[in-house]
Amino acid sequence: MPSIITLTTDFGLAGPYVGAMKGVILSINPSAKLIDISHSIAPQNIRQAAMILAGATLWFPAGTIHVAVVDPGVGTERRIVYAEIGDQRYVCPDNGLLSKLAAKVPPTRIATVANAEHWRPTVSATFHGRDIMAPVAAMLSLGLDPKLLGPPQPELVPLDWPRPKISERQIIGEVIWIDDFGNLITNITADMLAPFAGRSDITIEIRNQTIHGLSRAYADHRARSLLALIGSTGHLEIASAGSSAAKFLAATPDTPITVRATP
Amino acid sequence: MPSIITLTTDFGLAGPYVGAMKGVILSINPSAKLIDISHSIAPQNIRQAAMILAGATLWFPAGTIHVAVVDPGVGTERRIVYAEIGDQRYVCPDNGLLSKLAAKVPPTRIATVANAEHWRPTVSATFHGRDIMAPVAAMLSLGLDPKLLGPPQPELVPLDWPRPKISERQIIGEVIWIDDFGNLITNITADMLAPFAGRSDITIEIRNQTIHGLSRAYADHRARSLLALIGSTGHLEIASAGSSAAKFLAATPDTPITVRATP
Amino acid sequence: MPSIITLTTDFGLAGPYVGAMKGVILSINPSAKLIDISHSIAPQNIRQAAMILAGATLWFPAGTIHVAVVDPGVGTERRIVYAEIGDQRYVCPDNGLLSKLAAKVPPTRIATVANAEHWRPTVSATFHGRDIMAPVAAMLSLGLDPKLLGPPQPELVPLDWPRPKISERQIIGEVIWIDDFGNLITNITADMLAPFAGRSDITIEIRNQTIHGLSRAYADHRARSLLALIGSTGHLEIASAGSSAAKFLAATPDTPITVRATP
Repeated sequence: MPSIITLTTDFGLAGPYVGAMKGVILSINPSAKLIDISHSIAPQNIRQAAMILAGATLWFPAGTIHVAVVDPGVGTERRIVYAEIGDQRYVCPDNGLLSKLAAKVPPTRIATVANAEHWRPTVSATFHGRDIMAPVAAMLSLGLDPKLLGPPQPELVPLDWPRPKISERQIIGEVIWIDDFGNLITNITADMLAPFAGRSDITIEIRNQTIHGLSRAYADHRARSLLALIGSTGHLEIASAGSSAAKFLAATPDTPITVRATP
Repeated sequence: MPSIITLTTDFGLAGPYVGAMKGVILSINPSAKLIDISHSIAPQNIRQAAMILAGATLWFPAGTIHVAVVDPGVGTERRIVYAEIGDQRYVCPDNGLLSKLAAKVPPTRIATVANAEHWRPTVSATFHGRDIMAPVAAMLSLGLDPKLLGPPQPELVPLDWPRPKISERQIIGEVIWIDDFGNLITNITADMLAPFAGRSDITIEIRNQTIHGLSRAYADHRARSLLALIGSTGHLEIASAGSSAAKFLAATPDTPITVRATP
Repeated sequence: MPSIITLTTDFGLAGPYVGAMKGVILSINPSAKLIDISHSIAPQNIRQAAMILAGATLWFPAGTIHVAVVDPGVGTERRIVYAEIGDQRYVCPDNGLLSKLAAKVPPTRIATVANAEHWRPTVSATFHGRDIMAPVAAMLSLGLDPKLLGPPQPELVPLDWPRPKISERQIIGEVIWIDDFGNLITNITADMLAPFAGRSDITIEIRNQTIHGLSRAYADHRARSLLALIGSTGHLEIASAGSSAAKFLAATPDTPITVRATP
């Protein structure tokens, strides 16, 4: 079975950064199977990357190595970590990138990547993706024992995620990210909605619009009308069939949303 | 020979959707060779995806499996199909995505993907790319007999493509898509132009501009002048050497174009 | 070891061009390992592609074949070349794409790709990436002797790169490209700055802003303040921690920058 290494970065593709990382990995392990998850994370948006890692990486085969580089603190005191979560392996800056994943599935091993023996001989202060994380991932894919990366550390740096305020008949949450369709993904999960009586009894308010009930699919309503549903990542979403709910509502991450149980 | 699976979607890369599909495929067949064709289809633009599938997929080795997910009807009654066209194999929603291809090369087999045995155990109403199409493609790449996917169906859902009006001395067509260079690709093909007398006798009118004759290459004319040529997909294109014809003409899909034979 | 073929183009992903090239390569060598470097070069921006090739490709394993297609002159007299630079191999139009690389590492072999025997049987005037460069790269990956591609040529077509004006106490350079973070990469290199007395004695002027001294990392300064540093490609960069220096300064490629040694 080939070793799979996935890449998730905010580098974009206007520069040589993604190519350089791929070259470093393949120079160490030419048989590694490189898989692009995304290089279109908004610059330095750790939350967006954390959502993508939580939504995408657990689907991969056991032992897959996921390298994530959204790294505003590169060259400062922030650590680089190796973590095992579920049956997956991660190499990334310790800045909250794994916080959404770790809230779903507790890490079974966390180590500080500290042993420079497995890095590029010269490490820049500006590109640890190329100089540290790429060679470490490649060495792991060749079978390097993770114990040799550095000492264990007890926990990951947390990230402050906005939490919904839940009362008996109301949940106040917010939009946490917006996908390429313009769907608004909120921090309200299916679990939180479960205690509310039958779903047809729910109303959702966002930006002075009211939505009655949950839909099952994006095409359930007439085009351009707003609808709410539980999306594929298990979160409450606001969508607009055939157009962008984000544009229609002028919504952004942080836009508040209220769910009410109606008697 | 490794099994090749290509991906064509409108998911964009701001979310976890593409990564989730890749993970599901590789979990079933870690040796599959995944090839990205595009994840930048405009949201729910079936015509654009159909053009890309027709222009790109027939170049692949025999037996390649192409998964296309532009799926506004996900979770509704629309079917998912398996089709064999030329020596290629396709898995996608039955919504016209294969209409351009099937007009070029008639399908030799069409089946409704109906047997849930090969799907993920839990199927969401919002993401059949991950829950149905990815596992089906992965199982096919492992050698699953397509007969086991579901019953044959006689034909694909057609898509209404605008057809040029052709008379003896004139063709009235329209722009059907615009590439990243700003070239305007029309629904007028080289075949339609053939009966017209010598190509130097053609004039092309678009947005109050007149172009005389066909060029052979994008660089045939002086910079910024408009030119017309038969592009690499066999369609009449309007281009502007060194800049964007789409911007220069403020043209969009649907902009009309007239070709006249001049005596 | 699988044969690696990288792709760098200005095609974007709204059309079938990238998919068609991948299909042609894999039809000839289904075992080739395709690696995307970028398909987001600005249309016909040879300088940007040359920077990416220089920054990314030398990191790959020896023998990697890099195909670069930014080709405004397709269908005209411009040549297609095969070149060996360092331990890497390149196939691209001879229009300056390799000029930045060749300035770093002199090519050890250059040949004109002239022998049509290894091309697609029908060659369009508009898409030599698909019809010539893809099949040539695929044949090379199968072991074709480069001598069979065509005759040697003495040198590559040069590209006119803006050179900094260097005097004893001052360097006047310019921005040459802008990455996806909005960092401004200039044509002033670490080598040029070395003779200046201690780096803390440097001031940098750009767009009426003055920056004192060089930073070591992007996060060295308080958010939104401008900083200057030597970036991962060895060039002087202007950055803005947590935001886009390009937006803040309204800078573009060609924006002048002055470095002064202060006594």
